[in-house]
Amino acid sequence: MTTMEQLRTAKAACPALLRATTEEKNRALLAMADALAAHAAEILDVNRRDVEAARGTISEVMLDRLALNPARIAGMVDGVRQVAALPDPVGRVLETVERPNGLRIEKVSVPMGVVAIVYESRPNVTSDAAALALKSGNVCVLRGGKEAYATANAITAALREGLRKAGLPEDCVSTIQDTGHESVHTLMEAVGLVDLLIPRGGPGLIEACVRGALVPCIQTGTGICHVYVDAAADQEMALNIIENAKTSRPSVCNAEEVLLVHRQIAAEFLPKVRVRLERDRLQAGKQPVELRCDRRAAAVLGGPVAGEKDFDTEFLDYILAVAVVDSVEAAIAHIAAHSTGHSDAIVTEDPAAAELFTTLVDSAAVYVNASTRFTDGGEFGLGCEMGISTQKLHARGPMGLRELTSYKYVVRGSGQIR
Amino acid sequence: MTTMEQLRTAKAACPALLRATTEEKNRALLAMADALAAHAAEILDVNRRDVEAARGTISEVMLDRLALNPARIAGMVDGVRQVAALPDPVGRVLETVERPNGLRIEKVSVPMGVVAIVYESRPNVTSDAAALALKSGNVCVLRGGKEAYATANAITAALREGLRKAGLPEDCVSTIQDTGHESVHTLMEAVGLVDLLIPRGGPGLIEACVRGALVPCIQTGTGICHVYVDAAADQEMALNIIENAKTSRPSVCNAEEVLLVHRQIAAEFLPKVRVRLERDRLQAGKQPVELRCDRRAAAVLGGPVAGEKDFDTEFLDYILAVAVVDSVEAAIAHIAAHSTGHSDAIVTEDPAAAELFTTLVDSAAVYVNASTRFTDGGEFGLGCEMGISTQKLHARGPMGLRELTSYKYVVRGSGQIR
Repeated sequence: MTTMEQLRTAKAACPALLRATTEEKNRALLAMADALAAHAAEILDVNRRDVEAARGTISEVMLDRLALNPARIAGMVDGVRQVAALPDPVGRVLETVERPNGLRIEKVSVPMGVVAIVYESRPNVTSDAAALALKSGNVCVLRGGKEAYATANAITAALREGLRKAGLPEDCVSTIQDTGHESVHTLMEAVGLVDLLIPRGGPGLIEACVRGALVPCIQTGTGICHVYVDAAADQEMALNIIENAKTSRPSVCNAEEVLLVHRQIAAEFLPKVRVRLERDRLQAGKQPVELRCDRRAAAVLGGPVAGEKDFDTEFLDYILAVAVVDSVEAAIAHIAAHSTGHSDAIVTEDPAAAELFTTLVDSAAVYVNASTRFTDGGEFGLGCEMGISTQKLHARGPMGLRELTSYKYVVRGSGQIR
Repeated sequence: MTTMEQLRTAKAACPALLRATTEEKNRALLAMADALAAHAAEILDVNRRDVEAARGTISEVMLDRLALNPARIAGMVDGVRQVAALPDPVGRVLETVERPNGLRIEKVSVPMGVVAIVYESRPNVTSDAAALALKSGNVCVLRGGKEAYATANAITAALREGLRKAGLPEDCVSTIQDTGHESVHTLMEAVGLVDLLIPRGGPGLIEACVRGALVPCIQTGTGICHVYVDAAADQEMALNIIENAKTSRPSVCNAEEVLLVHRQIAAEFLPKVRVRLERDRLQAGKQPVELRCDRRAAAVLGGPVAGEKDFDTEFLDYILAVAVVDSVEAAIAHIAAHSTGHSDAIVTEDPAAAELFTTLVDSAAVYVNASTRFTDGGEFGLGCEMGISTQKLHARGPMGLRELTSYKYVVRGSGQIR
């Protein structure tokens, strides 16, 4: 089938999901999980061949993301079961208005329709996204990377078997067969067939989708996250937050990339930062962090001066750009100029500085005295996550089930005219 | 100033609005209304010259939309004052989560930032949009039509005087000076400077913005609205709804364009439709409605068969496309294929048919036994309206103040790390 034919088939499955009850959707999710578990051996076999074929053509990191093992499959099965246990985001009555003319207006949450996910090689995205889409009443179209196609297809085949057994159309979940660039363009331009496009992957993929999409698209991911240490900070707390935000998992989007320090404490605090991130970590046998200092930070710590680009780079590595700022206002201005709007933190004991920071920093998550690493669906109590939106339209921050819904107004009357 | 310079100036005004209290914003709105009233004579004078210059270059309808008079200015002044009386949509705590680790997560409504409105010639859009944007904490950039530029600029000058007097930056409201196509493209592509683009005007303008925009854009307006008369309808009620939805104001987006009739009642009901919309209206000295019937409707009523395009046209005129369908499911399928997702109605006394229709019709407003003409911010009790969204992302249906906000997560801790 061409991609357009696949999309038309997907769209045709929407009414069945619109009519499905919560119980029917949950039964389908449990059947999908069972089918995934039952086909684990086949999926592992197909995945082994995908990994062999990809070896040498993609990086070791990507190979590791692609590779499945029994524990990873068990995790995927468990993930689908957990989605069944979450509350249904569809059919919530968000508002009810009874008008003087007798009209009863209900604002009700509804599925988006067809949700297309463009991702790279991680097989668990296939089952995670399919489960979240199904629970939110959406038909899901998955377009993964070429090197992961056979694996994604084997997973999807199991999920579709589960759907069939539970009496829902198997086309509620499908894998786009064309793994070339052409199919991504088709998805981006399929107005009327794709109701929401979510790219999950590197900045190149996300940028291309956001720029090229004619269908509604949610920008996820890129995080140039800042920690600002105020003059009134608890410095020991600040060191803990900085080390955690930078080093607990440097490859993720909520990791810290830039440290801003108030000039009043720079001479005292910056050397402590270096001890904590370099010497202490080396002594503990951990990977040290490379500091890239602006002119004023370098004047305290010595060494070369960072390039301008260092303050606009998502390193995703043991590298931290460091700058000295004159005030909380200056920190806010720096963040306005360089942040991707993901997660930014202030460390301060001064309530006025905290208030100014949370009011003016225009990011999805703004922290006072905590690590940026908490920006995550699970940590926010959503129970799941379809990605982290860095845009302000529709969904912002961790996207759970509710963010995969729209709403409509259902207006009931008895012949009212205007 | 170039459009980009104007946008940078607008962006720079955002922090002042983020920090403004509800009282400060309301005081500014009242000062804006006062200034508008105080400068009424000048605005009328400028408008008279705009109208003279435009005469012969734009249609009579457009000329009428452009022309101001003292009553229209008074209406604009009143509109701004009414917005001051509405509740503040910003700073609402939408959710609060206290996590086991002690983190306190608040989901708080915030302004979008810079909202750009591209519209045509109606001067009241200038003050309406500026007032709604200001109340929702947004800086507003207005790009009106060339023929209305001097009028819009005179209105904006008054509004800016009000802002200054109230102690807020006058750049919270501005008119784009370049009225050529170039400036619309700049607005559509100003990523990071325009946080939301709202086109208000004809389908050509809206389509161009939605297709071309790299910034977040909300699709408003076009309405191909259906009324489906079920076999189990109260036929007298159906006639009233059809006539009202079609003729009470044919030029607006929530007017009916297509009538669908169940085949069981077609032979009985269609002649009544013709009597009501043609003979009765002629006798009452009202403009009759031209019926464009599909093959099956024409078999009942006689006359030529409508073209395929008649079912995909927003007539905005005394014209109604009429088709006969086999069932409520067939009506739903017709609507899925032809509706713009604005407002669609069923007339029926059968609860099962009503339930199926409201569940499966994927439109912003779905009516049971009422006219589609109620899709309107005022009629829905929002107190105002920035347009009617026909998209499913972010805002759907009449957009009030809340739809001009986003949200962010403010996370307060005491040194939590992950």
